Amino acid sequence: METAALQKAIQMYVEAFEKADLNIIRNLFAEDAIQEDPVGSPPRHGIEEILEFYKAGFAMGMRLKLTGKPRCAGNSVAFSFDGVMEKMIVSPIDVFEFNAHGKIQHMSAYWGPENVT
Amino acid sequence: METAALQKAIQMYVEAFEKADLNIIRNLFAEDAIQEDPVGSPPRHGIEEILEFYKAGFAMGMRLKLTGKPRCAGNSVAFSFDGVMEKMIVSPIDVFEFNAHGKIQHMSAYWGPENVT
Repeated sequence: METAALQKAIQMYVEAFEKADLNIIRNLFAEDAIQEDPVGSPPRHGIEEILEFYKAGFAMGMRLKLTGKPRCAGNSVAFSFDGVMEKMIVSPIDVFEFNAHGKIQHMSAYWGPENVT
Repeated sequence: METAALQKAIQMYVEAFEKADLNIIRNLFAEDAIQEDPVGSPPRHGIEEILEFYKAGFAMGMRLKLTGKPRCAGNSVAFSFDGVMEKMIVSPIDVFEFNAHGKIQHMSAYWGPENVT
């Protein structure tokens, strides 16, 4: 996948949080996408379960601040960010794997208690 | 897997580069581990192919500087770092997935030309 397309997806993802816009999320993910956030917890299957997750995130007023350039490789991109809420910051590394249609097929979020401040 | 064990593995990995010590690498990875560096390129299969890769890296005098806390999640850890060589810095995000024996079963390195300075 083109680097520019991967970078654009990250940009749209950040914008989705800024605007609390679930339609952007719906447009980024495949219908049958799988999301693990955090990795090690039960995965969410399909766009409807995934949208519920983001709805909750948006309700907490989370904003994303990238902490470094996205790392684009093959059909994947890994990126680190601060998820800033009113009283808490969580600092994950996310990995998006895209399918042949340019939609996120698999999302993995790596973070633990030691990445929350 | 315990967070402390995941963090220790990262510490050993950084030390392997400092000391150019292939035995540390051999001890970290499973015999039948798979390595994708960068993701999208043909994977290396098994410890011997993986050791060849690190031998080349050590020959270039690469040193690792973590750029942020490791993100430990389940049996995995993701971390960003600068791979510092004499005339070049490459800044990947790596993901290690560990097996039940605490060895790295799968390693994925995310980076592209835009992460090289």
